[in-house]
Amino acid sequence: MKKTERIVTAALIIIGNEILSGRTQDVNLNHIAKKMNEHGIRMMECRVVPDIENEIIDALNALRPKFDYIFTTGGIGPTHDDITAACIAKAFGQKLILNPEAYGVMAAHYKKLELEFSEARARMAHTPEHATLIENPVSIAPGFKVDNVFVLAGVPKIMQAMLESLLPSLSGGTKILSKTLLCNLPEGEIAEGLGHTQDNFPSIEIGSYPAFTANDFRLSLVLRGSNEQLLETAMMEVIDLIKSFAGDYKIT
Amino acid sequence: MKKTERIVTAALIIIGNEILSGRTQDVNLNHIAKKMNEHGIRMMECRVVPDIENEIIDALNALRPKFDYIFTTGGIGPTHDDITAACIAKAFGQKLILNPEAYGVMAAHYKKLELEFSEARARMAHTPEHATLIENPVSIAPGFKVDNVFVLAGVPKIMQAMLESLLPSLSGGTKILSKTLLCNLPEGEIAEGLGHTQDNFPSIEIGSYPAFTANDFRLSLVLRGSNEQLLETAMMEVIDLIKSFAGDYKIT
Repeated sequence: MKKTERIVTAALIIIGNEILSGRTQDVNLNHIAKKMNEHGIRMMECRVVPDIENEIIDALNALRPKFDYIFTTGGIGPTHDDITAACIAKAFGQKLILNPEAYGVMAAHYKKLELEFSEARARMAHTPEHATLIENPVSIAPGFKVDNVFVLAGVPKIMQAMLESLLPSLSGGTKILSKTLLCNLPEGEIAEGLGHTQDNFPSIEIGSYPAFTANDFRLSLVLRGSNEQLLETAMMEVIDLIKSFAGDYKIT
Repeated sequence: MKKTERIVTAALIIIGNEILSGRTQDVNLNHIAKKMNEHGIRMMECRVVPDIENEIIDALNALRPKFDYIFTTGGIGPTHDDITAACIAKAFGQKLILNPEAYGVMAAHYKKLELEFSEARARMAHTPEHATLIENPVSIAPGFKVDNVFVLAGVPKIMQAMLESLLPSLSGGTKILSKTLLCNLPEGEIAEGLGHTQDNFPSIEIGSYPAFTANDFRLSLVLRGSNEQLLETAMMEVIDLIKSFAGDYKIT
């Protein structure tokens, strides 16, 4: 790997019993991972934890010293099972306070909608004492950031809007470029040759992903790396490999 | 919680750069979580880790003493990036061997298909020395089990078939029953009352999940617990709460 590369990393903590019970299919990891890729940030780990205080705090404290950015999704609504803000405060040894800025934004919003700013809704205006807010253009109640931890909503539409608000504040590293070859060969045929190509290009990460469609089989060979020329050369080597087995391929 | 309850727990380790890069949307957690639910087993945690040996081993050794069953998905194919079996062997301090039973099953299969049993394919016949095999009716190369760790394929169709093979061998605990109320109230309105119901029924887990559809808003209130009568009583209390705000609801 070149000395001039700047590696920036991220991890995600998904907070929510609904993901672990199978009630809800998570789509936030995939969305955040793609956005990080675009910004030259490598998603290195994801943990899904239940709505249990010590599990959330343990995950936070395990991951936040290890990666540049930590995202959390879920648990910042107005109900009793929304305990993320309190857990973040505890993990950082900060007080949970009624955040005046969040309160102001939300009070104005509910006034406009002629809705009561109930005690439950005010729960969403609580953050750790040294938090900065993350804008929520969808449903107003903000996310927040403490140190390197970004606390986002679990509802995908709201999470995505919050992520857009904060993305400009992240400093990305060297971008990872990617090439995908779709081919019709079984993995077992080309595995050995693919291993040789991997050995020849240690800075390129080569992944092999078979998939079964309704009445077809296809293999995706994904090459990832930060050096465009090396990536191109490695891809040509894999194409030669596919051809040597009389396989068809498509660059996607 | 009743003394007679038997709590059986599980966790999942998803192994694969393709999930963390955003290339692939994971669907295995959701499938396994639902199956565990049906069998009275509670999914307590999931970790997504990259194809890096020490990350896989660390996740295995963190989770396997903590939960009854650990599942892994991914990394058991024939290519260089398939390192799961070697990691499991290392985590358990066992040798990685060419498993004679796996070799036999696979040799017969490739012979029938008139395919070469290449060195790469033989990679899939390697397991830790004290592993027992998990049948793979889809593509033959088996999964395996070591102690409380079940090692499954990452391709959903294969993973699902392997899971069906092993499910009868799991001993489930007290089943968690679930009721969902779909209503048209904003979370902020009923959050306080919902918290009271949660306090009244500590053994029932009450979750509140707002969702935005294309042109609609709906709130799912999910009640989960092992005592059917308590669950029913708690649900009636939540229905009364919805009615007190003149809300509509549907039991789903």
